[in-house]
Amino acid sequence: MTILSSLGRASRSAPLASKLLLLGTLSGGSLVAYSDSNKKEEEQKQKKKKVVVLGTGWAGISFLKDLDISSYDVQVVSPQNYFAFTPLLPSVTCGTVEARSIVESVRNITKKKNGEIELWEADCVKIDPANNKVLCQPVFKDDPEASQEFSLEYDYLIIAVGAQVNTFGTPGVLENCHFLKEVEDAQRIRRGVIDCFEKAVLPGLTEEQRRTKLHFVIVGGGPTGVEFAAELHDFIEEDITKIYPSVKELVKITLIQSGDHILNSFDERISSFAEQKFLRDGIDVLMGMRVMSVSNKDISVKIKSSGEVVSLPHGLILWSTGVGTRPVISDLMEQVGQGGRRVLATNEWLQVKGCENVYAVGDCASIAQRKIMGDIANIFKAADVDNSGTLTEDELQDVVDDINVRYPQVELYLKSKHVRSIKDLLTDSEGNPKKEVDIKAFESALSGVDSQMKSLPATAQVAAQQGSYLAKCFNKMEHCKEHPEGPKRFRTGGHHQFRPFQYKHFGQFAPLGGDQAAAELPGDWVSAGRSTQWLWYSVYASKQVSWRTRALVVSDWTRRYIFGRDSSRI
Amino acid sequence: MTILSSLGRASRSAPLASKLLLLGTLSGGSLVAYSDSNKKEEEQKQKKKKVVVLGTGWAGISFLKDLDISSYDVQVVSPQNYFAFTPLLPSVTCGTVEARSIVESVRNITKKKNGEIELWEADCVKIDPANNKVLCQPVFKDDPEASQEFSLEYDYLIIAVGAQVNTFGTPGVLENCHFLKEVEDAQRIRRGVIDCFEKAVLPGLTEEQRRTKLHFVIVGGGPTGVEFAAELHDFIEEDITKIYPSVKELVKITLIQSGDHILNSFDERISSFAEQKFLRDGIDVLMGMRVMSVSNKDISVKIKSSGEVVSLPHGLILWSTGVGTRPVISDLMEQVGQGGRRVLATNEWLQVKGCENVYAVGDCASIAQRKIMGDIANIFKAADVDNSGTLTEDELQDVVDDINVRYPQVELYLKSKHVRSIKDLLTDSEGNPKKEVDIKAFESALSGVDSQMKSLPATAQVAAQQGSYLAKCFNKMEHCKEHPEGPKRFRTGGHHQFRPFQYKHFGQFAPLGGDQAAAELPGDWVSAGRSTQWLWYSVYASKQVSWRTRALVVSDWTRRYIFGRDSSRI
Repeated sequence: MTILSSLGRASRSAPLASKLLLLGTLSGGSLVAYSDSNKKEEEQKQKKKKVVVLGTGWAGISFLKDLDISSYDVQVVSPQNYFAFTPLLPSVTCGTVEARSIVESVRNITKKKNGEIELWEADCVKIDPANNKVLCQPVFKDDPEASQEFSLEYDYLIIAVGAQVNTFGTPGVLENCHFLKEVEDAQRIRRGVIDCFEKAVLPGLTEEQRRTKLHFVIVGGGPTGVEFAAELHDFIEEDITKIYPSVKELVKITLIQSGDHILNSFDERISSFAEQKFLRDGIDVLMGMRVMSVSNKDISVKIKSSGEVVSLPHGLILWSTGVGTRPVISDLMEQVGQGGRRVLATNEWLQVKGCENVYAVGDCASIAQRKIMGDIANIFKAADVDNSGTLTEDELQDVVDDINVRYPQVELYLKSKHVRSIKDLLTDSEGNPKKEVDIKAFESALSGVDSQMKSLPATAQVAAQQGSYLAKCFNKMEHCKEHPEGPKRFRTGGHHQFRPFQYKHFGQFAPLGGDQAAAELPGDWVSAGRSTQWLWYSVYASKQVSWRTRALVVSDWTRRYIFGRDSSRI
Repeated sequence: MTILSSLGRASRSAPLASKLLLLGTLSGGSLVAYSDSNKKEEEQKQKKKKVVVLGTGWAGISFLKDLDISSYDVQVVSPQNYFAFTPLLPSVTCGTVEARSIVESVRNITKKKNGEIELWEADCVKIDPANNKVLCQPVFKDDPEASQEFSLEYDYLIIAVGAQVNTFGTPGVLENCHFLKEVEDAQRIRRGVIDCFEKAVLPGLTEEQRRTKLHFVIVGGGPTGVEFAAELHDFIEEDITKIYPSVKELVKITLIQSGDHILNSFDERISSFAEQKFLRDGIDVLMGMRVMSVSNKDISVKIKSSGEVVSLPHGLILWSTGVGTRPVISDLMEQVGQGGRRVLATNEWLQVKGCENVYAVGDCASIAQRKIMGDIANIFKAADVDNSGTLTEDELQDVVDDINVRYPQVELYLKSKHVRSIKDLLTDSEGNPKKEVDIKAFESALSGVDSQMKSLPATAQVAAQQGSYLAKCFNKMEHCKEHPEGPKRFRTGGHHQFRPFQYKHFGQFAPLGGDQAAAELPGDWVSAGRSTQWLWYSVYASKQVSWRTRALVVSDWTRRYIFGRDSSRI
């Protein structure tokens, strides 16, 4: 009996009283009224639109959290009954944070006051947009009764299944490398690291063999690879070598990166700060390398500059480079004419191109932004209300907001040109604003805009914002049918129902070990060092999905400071 | 960098200073002295007796904790690199306590100031007492380099490998039941319970099928089975049904016991308290039943009284009845002429009968107590110092203490007769003490003593006391060779080197769920209820092996009160 549940008890006894009241007044026709209201509820439920959500990662969960389910009948299909706070996965690999501290039961998150969300632990194996159906396979493969495929019909489908690892076809990777996408992966790595040390101290091995067991290789210099390297270095330095003193000197960590710098999605200053930190820590960073193949003993690497291929014996490899496509998504892409792509293309409202009632969010999708140049004639025509063939300042003013909202690349372009508005682009050769512009001048002024189109990174931040955006659209679906809130439709007239999705970047962190972190914050603000690590602690604690995980994560950090990390192999 | 390690740093810098001092005085012949002392150390190490310990459970760890390793060269072989606080395993099955909170790395426990203990993660596959050798197989089966068998020589061998589950040859048990001996077992059960609920809510199942998935069967009404039933009941009642409301009414827990009462190693009052508590909780207790076979769907049970066989469909079964023999122990028993036994027989000094330098402690061994009747003539002869054929009061007084120590059953016998000393047994027909007794009277007075011989239960308490006792014997091995501290050797003369092992029973607990527990405490004191649960909390917290696990276990209990138990399937 938890304290929270004891508090809840008193309120739950109330319905009993009302039932007794009902029984007492039964003779006066109440029974009929009761069954009537029952019927109405049933009817209303049948009228409710069916929403099926695939996946309970960042995108799926933030959609479910923000959705008002009083007007939808929601069914969720996910192979996991929990949500994992994935940015802390690298911390789980070395026991800085426990696996269970970063997961929260989906059923706990989706418990709602005004209805019930149904959740099934299953994989979606086939999406059938032509018939508005999905086919699902429960995860309990070894139980004949509980592994029967079932199909669900939907009015709206939300695809949030995420991505899988991408081996780029490199032989031996799937069999011999660890990955870091799921909680189970992190747990496996934790056991793997301890195993390497336990193997290295066994009697009868040569020093060369011991060295091999303790060679940890990380492929991919992105945030995940870098953070794992840092965590591993700290774990070994602070905890492990104390209890395996005899093999302390044989440990080596190597980070292999195909590009010329690690953390190349970050500011240059952060990349070089990280490289220098790793150099001081004795972590080998090999840049400009491509992995050719992996065996259970060696990893074969080609030095891009010289073409030479070298073979490195290893004890454990983490493969953390790139994201690949799940089979169910590849299959759907074939069906909707998007075959051959890596991720699903959606419009700015996150609708999958080719099926209006199917939405895709998070790592499995990417927004195919509309080019302003493709619509330039329509924009001009819509703006030129007096059909004069030129736009006056006032006519332009009337469409500027719609253009900004509809084509987010405009804002980035203006920023890059250091001007405040489209109107500032329409100047003559001396830089004075033009009073009127014709289509040619208009086109040439905006011709560079589309160069600023950027696809969003496959991060938790993007996925969470997309899920939340979509929930808000669903919540005002009926209202916005009557009162569209989106920008002008330049081609067909009228307005879009909703404002398109727009991503707000709140910055990114790269923890580098030894209680140091680097951060890139909005406004080109770059910071690195110990204080940044404390900023990281507070941001990550505040972003937790529940008070339970928040309390656990903070207590794990505290525990680590007091007792160190545990090295039991469980 | 942990706080503890920072504190340690200052002290560790001292040796550097002494090394510098050494370098400074090198010219004065110090180098010779240095290499001399090195050689001495080497020699001393070679002189040190080799102790090999098999297993790191309760017995092994308490031996290692209490052993003074300055005079021994200690090697430990265990398939696990951690020690688990097994009495809390039932709590782990439902997430009341986390798995990692009850384990502690063996290397952390055995870090000693005066030497190093070597630990190898391996199974002992063969004990060869004739050649003082053990053969070991590392646990890393899939790594050819790290799975080479190796052999260790010993001067003393401590066998503390514990027991394995006992299926009593019942078909299907190994394949279809869960067990609760290791931490991994508890983690598997936790996932298994959640799986049952996830299966039961899947679409397309009949109500009968859902009922089957949610039928939890426990075989064995001992402390483990009862505690698991209680934990499971609490977990379902307090946490699970809130998030799986649709199948709440279909859950059933059944406890199958072959005897007529559950907890039959406890006081009767506790058994009936537990049975009544389970009746109120709706846990079905089936007594007088024998399991005939188990399949993945059903468990087939024979009602002993009627001979009728019934079949119960199940979702999950915990098999928690009896302990079996590990193959390596069976093999050793064959070699030393103990073939056919369930556990190794040792003498009262925990030496395996038939090999003086091999000791066995914990669940894999049992003390074969010496019968006083077998030695009665020798005792009489040793006591009768004037060879008069009768014992005077003084002569008897001289051997009473030795008899008490050598034959622990005497104490129990005296207690059962409500007398204080052996002398009180030697009375004439009117109850007056006899002045002198002959051998016949002496024999008849002690004839009932051996009926009080009891073998010790297979509990953590016994194992821990044995390990600790043995370490203390090893610590004073040299001293006691010269100055034996044990009782008289009645047959051969002289004294035993050590006092024999004597078990002190500190009582036992049975947590019954709903924050109630029953306890049997020394002095026939029985208590049950909520206050006993708080006693349980404080005893179990104080018995933890390290401050880390103590802090974690207490924080887990607190977490459970505030947030409930987590039901994520990881």
